[in-house]
Amino acid sequence: MTSVPPSVTVLGTGAMGTALAGALLDRGHRTTVWNRTAAKAQPLVERGALLAPTPGAAIAASPLVIACVLDYDALYSALDGSTDLLAGRAFVNLTSGSAEQARAARDRFDGHGADYLDGAIMTTPPGVGSREVMVLYSGPRTAFDAHHAALEALGDPVHLGEDPGLAALYDSALLGLMWSTMTGWLHGTALVGAEGTPATAFTPVAIRWLATVNSFLTRYASQVDAGRYPGDDATIDVQIAAIGHLLHAAAERGLDNALPELLKSTMERARAAGHGSSSFAGVIEVLRAEVAA
Amino acid sequence: MTSVPPSVTVLGTGAMGTALAGALLDRGHRTTVWNRTAAKAQPLVERGALLAPTPGAAIAASPLVIACVLDYDALYSALDGSTDLLAGRAFVNLTSGSAEQARAARDRFDGHGADYLDGAIMTTPPGVGSREVMVLYSGPRTAFDAHHAALEALGDPVHLGEDPGLAALYDSALLGLMWSTMTGWLHGTALVGAEGTPATAFTPVAIRWLATVNSFLTRYASQVDAGRYPGDDATIDVQIAAIGHLLHAAAERGLDNALPELLKSTMERARAAGHGSSSFAGVIEVLRAEVAA
Repeated sequence: MTSVPPSVTVLGTGAMGTALAGALLDRGHRTTVWNRTAAKAQPLVERGALLAPTPGAAIAASPLVIACVLDYDALYSALDGSTDLLAGRAFVNLTSGSAEQARAARDRFDGHGADYLDGAIMTTPPGVGSREVMVLYSGPRTAFDAHHAALEALGDPVHLGEDPGLAALYDSALLGLMWSTMTGWLHGTALVGAEGTPATAFTPVAIRWLATVNSFLTRYASQVDAGRYPGDDATIDVQIAAIGHLLHAAAERGLDNALPELLKSTMERARAAGHGSSSFAGVIEVLRAEVAA
Repeated sequence: MTSVPPSVTVLGTGAMGTALAGALLDRGHRTTVWNRTAAKAQPLVERGALLAPTPGAAIAASPLVIACVLDYDALYSALDGSTDLLAGRAFVNLTSGSAEQARAARDRFDGHGADYLDGAIMTTPPGVGSREVMVLYSGPRTAFDAHHAALEALGDPVHLGEDPGLAALYDSALLGLMWSTMTGWLHGTALVGAEGTPATAFTPVAIRWLATVNSFLTRYASQVDAGRYPGDDATIDVQIAAIGHLLHAAAERGLDNALPELLKSTMERARAAGHGSSSFAGVIEVLRAEVAA
């Protein structure tokens, strides 16, 4: 006896919505789609999707409704008049937005009897469907568990907690980490590139180095939670001295040094706050909100 | 028939030199050490190291001489009068410094008949000796190959090229990547922490996300080398919009936003330079030296 993959509806067939619906079709789900401009859904129809004429018809087709539209204005506009149809269904909102927007949406849709899950897809459209890729969810664990099999079609589903704002908050935090890492990597690539090293030679070494950096993050995470940052391995004072080498080397080669200059001044602020002999984790003290005196 | 591990000399027994000599002793190498303040080498002597009374005596003891002292001034001061003894030996300099200092040292020591390798240890002292840890070397491949077995005691030896400046250049580039990554991670940790998520909950997700980021780096490295940055997956324009969410979320929670503000302004400069529809790799164009007009 084989089980039939459950029906799923996808609202919005932009690049990401198309990737989501495509991943569901690939796994054999009966997939209903709706898009404001129906023509954009045509490639999915050719792959076997059912095209619904209205958002309401799309919602009515499946117990699991996934939305991925431009923004919350587009979401509310699409659902205007159809919200009651969400009653008794799981509504998974993968539209990008803030934690506050996710919480407001939960309040709105829960009031109509839907189980609201907010989510964030931690990849670009070509990565959708890979088991390597995380899709973050927050909201009721029961709804997450009930639809786990279908959510697995989109990537590896990770449940962060009951607060629907968590997925958006993690999304912002992780993207910030990505931009920091990518900009630091490009600066390093430019530095070694100034002496003729190709990016494709430097990058495997950089990726291997990031595995070592990961071990630092793991150690420092415990320090952050404990609120104590013993600098046994390397102190902020030592890092401030070391970043001088980088600034000098990069300036000599004509690079833009705004990023390492900022990193240095951030460390110096941590030192001024009394963390010179702390580990790098002490830098968090100058990044987060001041505790009210 | 078992081979006897070759003799090795370590000049400098600060925290890192002690870790290096300790790793050699652990692998059974006859290890001779010298330190300006001999008392600091005493723990190594208790572990079986031979203490040399002078740098010259230490150099004379082994075909492979590793130096790890405070800086180049300390290096030249230690070797003053003993440089001729390096003739016919491999001299591996793990003292921190610049590519220019490494090249000047090569010129100096090669003139005395030594095979000069410059190196950078990509870990803190507790990590020395692990196979997971990279030790970067640059200089003659023949000398690297000849002493590979002993160098393996210190970590995984990675040869970057014949130019002795490469190890120091990579070291600076990789440390810059580390500080960028760690600061971005701390900012993200502070963001989710403002809503009660522990660092130890966020960090495993962040580390998993960095594996996805690594796949972006690999893709973008080829783009950097080609000098073309197709934005098929995500354009700089899209990233500029997305970083607005981060800035807003972090500002709402009282965080210091200097880092994401800088990342945004860097992307905006890339857009102004005509790279709005490029991938993030296009940012390198505003980081590296202007090509002379």
